[in-house]
Amino acid sequence: MKLYGYFRSSAAFRVRIALNLKGLDYDSSFIHLRRGDQSQPEFLAVNPQGLVPALEIDDERLVQSLPIIEYLDETHPEPPLLPRDPSGRARVRALAAVVACDIHPINNLRVLRYLHRNFGQDEAAIGDWYNHWIDSGFQALERLLAEDRRTGVFCHGDRPGLADIALVPQVVNAERYQLDMGPYPTIARIFERCMGLDPFAAAHPARQPDRE
Amino acid sequence: MKLYGYFRSSAAFRVRIALNLKGLDYDSSFIHLRRGDQSQPEFLAVNPQGLVPALEIDDERLVQSLPIIEYLDETHPEPPLLPRDPSGRARVRALAAVVACDIHPINNLRVLRYLHRNFGQDEAAIGDWYNHWIDSGFQALERLLAEDRRTGVFCHGDRPGLADIALVPQVVNAERYQLDMGPYPTIARIFERCMGLDPFAAAHPARQPDRE
Repeated sequence: MKLYGYFRSSAAFRVRIALNLKGLDYDSSFIHLRRGDQSQPEFLAVNPQGLVPALEIDDERLVQSLPIIEYLDETHPEPPLLPRDPSGRARVRALAAVVACDIHPINNLRVLRYLHRNFGQDEAAIGDWYNHWIDSGFQALERLLAEDRRTGVFCHGDRPGLADIALVPQVVNAERYQLDMGPYPTIARIFERCMGLDPFAAAHPARQPDRE
Repeated sequence: MKLYGYFRSSAAFRVRIALNLKGLDYDSSFIHLRRGDQSQPEFLAVNPQGLVPALEIDDERLVQSLPIIEYLDETHPEPPLLPRDPSGRARVRALAAVVACDIHPINNLRVLRYLHRNFGQDEAAIGDWYNHWIDSGFQALERLLAEDRRTGVFCHGDRPGLADIALVPQVVNAERYQLDMGPYPTIARIFERCMGLDPFAAAHPARQPDRE
């Protein structure tokens, strides 16, 4: 099993956490996004989207972080990353989607580059943009977590799962842009708890071989 | 069952298709996004994200279109919207995620408004932005579809499913912005086939009671 990733990609970070939680060994191929490795023909043959992560298993390549994680959960059921009841599963998937659909893609490197190159936005304006979308998503997530009895030590109950896997890398990104986490106490509490666990801590960008 | 939606929201469009494919009746609550209904306290109590769709079932509210559709598929298994094999499921979810994560959120109304209000971009610049992200995603989707033997009459085999449900509303958006579909023949072929089916056709924005 080979993971195509980049230390700072939060989508690759999610898959690293999932692989660690499942106790699965994997090889790594480092795709340097700032240098443009993702646009080289060799990588586009792996993933025509030119995005990380991609996971190679035997002769197959899987793309998109949440579908990859669902695949890992279906093929390696223990420990489960989703609850058993359809309603709980919908909740966990939705919490993950708030990050994976409505925060992260808007703040992705290629989007920030478009703002800079095509719209001439400077670093300060791009920083405001970045934190605006995190704040918007975190405000909603904080309510969805704080107002629901199913929230436990982690996003859903007392076992880490798909929602925590999506949340943690986004908080790491927020820290990088110095976003004040004060308004999101439930998110901050869950983040701290996750980072106390080795599968999350070992997946942190700062601990990857390709870190800078 | 009540769907909170808006005729032009492509995420709500997805859920309408899924409900139609499953043959499920539902009530509608129309949230007028251009007038700002989604930011009113009544709707924020339904979905703190202030986005459509949301699906109310008994005393529960589900949010985020793909998790809602997976819930419908788990609770009403026929006809299935995902294949049975984990590898096929990962593929279909990934095709849906290319649209739902990497095209649609970047082109969402709230993002276009930010470009206009905060960055002073005009209609032409915003149109370029819009088509840039559709083109980028469609180029990848076209390859993922055209180069994979599992693509059939529909995105995966000969039965419509989650990937088609995500794809069709995005093509309708592309048509609205006059994107040339010539470079994406496989997408165009699948779109035409889907639109020949009543569950897709009846979910089209132009056929919703709240259309303008």
